[in-house]
Amino acid sequence: MTDFTFIKNEKIHNQIKFAITIDEMKNIFRRNLLADGSRRENDAEHSWHLAMLAMLLEEYSAEKVDIERVLKIALIHDLIEVYAGDTFAYDAKGNEDKHEREIQAAEKLFGMLDPDQGTEIRELWDEFEAMETAESKYANAIDRIQPLILNYLTDGHTWKMGDVTSDKIYKRMDIIRTATPELWHIVEGIINTSIKAGILKP
Amino acid sequence: MTDFTFIKNEKIHNQIKFAITIDEMKNIFRRNLLADGSRRENDAEHSWHLAMLAMLLEEYSAEKVDIERVLKIALIHDLIEVYAGDTFAYDAKGNEDKHEREIQAAEKLFGMLDPDQGTEIRELWDEFEAMETAESKYANAIDRIQPLILNYLTDGHTWKMGDVTSDKIYKRMDIIRTATPELWHIVEGIINTSIKAGILKP
Repeated sequence: MTDFTFIKNEKIHNQIKFAITIDEMKNIFRRNLLADGSRRENDAEHSWHLAMLAMLLEEYSAEKVDIERVLKIALIHDLIEVYAGDTFAYDAKGNEDKHEREIQAAEKLFGMLDPDQGTEIRELWDEFEAMETAESKYANAIDRIQPLILNYLTDGHTWKMGDVTSDKIYKRMDIIRTATPELWHIVEGIINTSIKAGILKP
Repeated sequence: MTDFTFIKNEKIHNQIKFAITIDEMKNIFRRNLLADGSRRENDAEHSWHLAMLAMLLEEYSAEKVDIERVLKIALIHDLIEVYAGDTFAYDAKGNEDKHEREIQAAEKLFGMLDPDQGTEIRELWDEFEAMETAESKYANAIDRIQPLILNYLTDGHTWKMGDVTSDKIYKRMDIIRTATPELWHIVEGIINTSIKAGILKP
């Protein structure tokens, strides 16, 4: 059943339509596997796990954060992939036109909502992408550490796919060093242990 | 790789272990399908969608809510299912010992964390279950409307499985009437349209 004509209020109708559209996040699969290696993780699961970890690890943010804003950023940070798809972090070619594709997706998706609410979500997304505020830096740091842990648990699954070396990981993880310095030893520990185990190239 | 001995700080070690344990939410499947009917929804996806909808529909809460607390409640409200499993809302037998099973699961799961943080999450879960605060009532209302919409989109999939009649749905949805009265017409619209279409028994 797709008939929602019984919702006469246009704002509510648009919100429900938006809520249904973003259900597609459950069908957008990332490169990394679940912790048990059984299958790839999707965007909805990743966004939940990211928000959950952001809630759990707040005390390690170098700057004090407004956790409400961090949680909102975590929930919406990948929404544009409903239209733009997931781009693998270590895919240089796919990342060339990534920003342009994502901006078009943002306009289409957030444009479904009333201007006030659409703008609010767009600003949260822009903030996440710009990585300038304390909340954005912290959210980005956790957004790096979450797949790093899953990759480590699954013997470097995505590193092998992308022919990734440790210097590329160090570069991508650098925001963790400054935004959550107390968690940096986890990055070093994972990389060092993985190199020793032969699942990651130095 | 499962070696995290490089994390010497016990608190951080426990938090990372907890973060990995709750990855299992991605493997706990609910009765309802995704919006496109392709498969059952899992707890991680549901929790993300619930938090997202709670963020989106805040203005319809009858009482003013602390949205930070609502989002935290949404993120953690089903965590205990990692150990207790999902109990179908319309399964009378399964619901008999549900509370006892879930309390044991809560003690085991939240006990993995430092006492302060474990207690904080336990209190959020207790609050959700008690349905007394404004935040809990609102979170519970959205937790009812999210699967209702998915069920409607998939032609009453779980209603057919559970031999559910409209009076049972009205009873289960009642919190929406009081916590988010402006959304109540969605419940009525979905039920009336479904009865007319022959996918729900009156």
